[in-house]
Amino acid sequence: MRGAVLYGPRDVRFEERDTPKIIKPTDAIIRISATCVCGSDLWPYRGINPVTQPTPMGHEYCGIVEQIGSAVTSIKPGQFVIGSFFASDNTCPNCQIGYQSGCQHAEFVGTAQAPLLRVPLADGTLVATPDVPADELIPNLLALSDVMGTGWFAADAANVKPGKTVAVVGDGAVGLLAVLSAKLMGAERIIAMSRHESRQKLAREFGATDIVNERGDEGVARIKELTGGIGADSVLECVGTQDSMMQAIHSTRKGGYVGYVGVPHGVELNGEQLFYAHVHLHGGPAPVRHFLPGLIDLVLNGKINPGKVFDLTLPLEQVAEGYRAMDERRAIKTLLRP
Amino acid sequence: MRGAVLYGPRDVRFEERDTPKIIKPTDAIIRISATCVCGSDLWPYRGINPVTQPTPMGHEYCGIVEQIGSAVTSIKPGQFVIGSFFASDNTCPNCQIGYQSGCQHAEFVGTAQAPLLRVPLADGTLVATPDVPADELIPNLLALSDVMGTGWFAADAANVKPGKTVAVVGDGAVGLLAVLSAKLMGAERIIAMSRHESRQKLAREFGATDIVNERGDEGVARIKELTGGIGADSVLECVGTQDSMMQAIHSTRKGGYVGYVGVPHGVELNGEQLFYAHVHLHGGPAPVRHFLPGLIDLVLNGKINPGKVFDLTLPLEQVAEGYRAMDERRAIKTLLRP
Repeated sequence: MRGAVLYGPRDVRFEERDTPKIIKPTDAIIRISATCVCGSDLWPYRGINPVTQPTPMGHEYCGIVEQIGSAVTSIKPGQFVIGSFFASDNTCPNCQIGYQSGCQHAEFVGTAQAPLLRVPLADGTLVATPDVPADELIPNLLALSDVMGTGWFAADAANVKPGKTVAVVGDGAVGLLAVLSAKLMGAERIIAMSRHESRQKLAREFGATDIVNERGDEGVARIKELTGGIGADSVLECVGTQDSMMQAIHSTRKGGYVGYVGVPHGVELNGEQLFYAHVHLHGGPAPVRHFLPGLIDLVLNGKINPGKVFDLTLPLEQVAEGYRAMDERRAIKTLLRP
Repeated sequence: MRGAVLYGPRDVRFEERDTPKIIKPTDAIIRISATCVCGSDLWPYRGINPVTQPTPMGHEYCGIVEQIGSAVTSIKPGQFVIGSFFASDNTCPNCQIGYQSGCQHAEFVGTAQAPLLRVPLADGTLVATPDVPADELIPNLLALSDVMGTGWFAADAANVKPGKTVAVVGDGAVGLLAVLSAKLMGAERIIAMSRHESRQKLAREFGATDIVNERGDEGVARIKELTGGIGADSVLECVGTQDSMMQAIHSTRKGGYVGYVGVPHGVELNGEQLFYAHVHLHGGPAPVRHFLPGLIDLVLNGKINPGKVFDLTLPLEQVAEGYRAMDERRAIKTLLRP
């Protein structure tokens, strides 16, 4: 089969890769209905994470079960399934407590930009829909594989509650879906920090009540202005840089909550600054598996359309253009169809 | 009057200082019944915080109101009062939400090792007891001025709940009272990390069920052993060093809570490490004022005896020996009587 392989900065190729096979009895092979490019794929694409060898790419997926290992019992061939970027057994103490992305047996699923995908720990990782969904639902369901679950976790980690004021740092797919999540959790005021018109528009559609163009200290000052000088109750950090992290922390009121889901790159938090900031901090790789059943229901019941973040759809063979469009910010998020 | 003045490393003198006066109409002057030496006083005493000029010392106090400013309405001369190390107006949005130590008008109260003390924002800062308490209650009430409130905040920030497993890093007065706080909040298992026999004994008396002697990675390994490999639900960090902070973070289960109240000295948290640790982090200077009324009730009703952390009582004029005994770990905490 042919799939995406990253060779180095801005060098993604669509080329022959080994066809995945069942390796362990707990594996499943799924035929990808749709996959996509993640903001976090841009870190190695831009050379910020070094690429030491040709690397198959992709960690967002949904599709039809093609084959299962001998120990798999909860899904069967022909079912439509969605999984997270971290395979998890869903039975260990970390999973039981809702942190499947910290499963004691977690494995990263990183070869999804391809027609076929091997998913380890299939019983614990994959969630099947009641029926094979209509084609127009695929983007919404694919979004649950990472970005919607991650935005949801940002809001959950930041303790978003009805009536509260929320600020979102980052206007990528995760930031936009963090806005949607905050809206669903009942936030009264949702301030999206964004400089890009198309993203601002989608943020408003998802529930943002205010847009802040400014960044850094100026962005913090604007949030303070909008919140009577005290800061937002919950701030959702969806970028992962030092600047975005400090922007989030300083935009939060005393005793408020920062939920951070942007994979940190070069972030160092000064203990003393954090101490006097008096904020709650929680985040990490989102336990998407934990939220999947509930989010699937929301999609199937027509309550949410997270697939709106896909503003570019390409055949998988044009994966390189998919990366390019996101790198150049021509697209928020690229959906790829094998 | 004569009070404590720090001149440099290990050089505390008991000498003539200006007698405090009402400066603002919101001030009160109190006659100190008892004051004490704090673990955090040892940072400058040991030269870790530089001392650039002779500095009056002391931020823990209780006593009799001697005089009030013209705008003070809620306390009156002759009342016995306790206050926190941060004066607060108790009316600003930060105070209203329970973060009086982050009051928009907070002022540090730092001259309490003396017979008389000026307390700014007296209405918001001081809490009076119903009557002037019996002398034997003074140590218990003095402990509420900082260490008990700070230990309580550590437990509160770490979300200690009935039935949970708690670990406490640090066996100073705050750490020991964090054990007591965890016990009061219903923790089922409380692991005190301590190497000192007298402190271990007091920790057990306050409710510790287990003692861990090891520190650093070995300490973390012991906590993991004691918790089925997953870590404690809540870890209370009561030291403020890089090692203690990392020990706390790594001793916490996925999705667990670190409450940190040790004033950070040279602490830098690596964003990526924190991200994958999946812990909740909250702390800062304790909003002691927020907890004072409830803690005063517990003392007056005989439910808690936090004054047990004072294992050395000296006349104020021997303040230098009070510091020395704590520095050399001959005393857990020194109470000083003017």
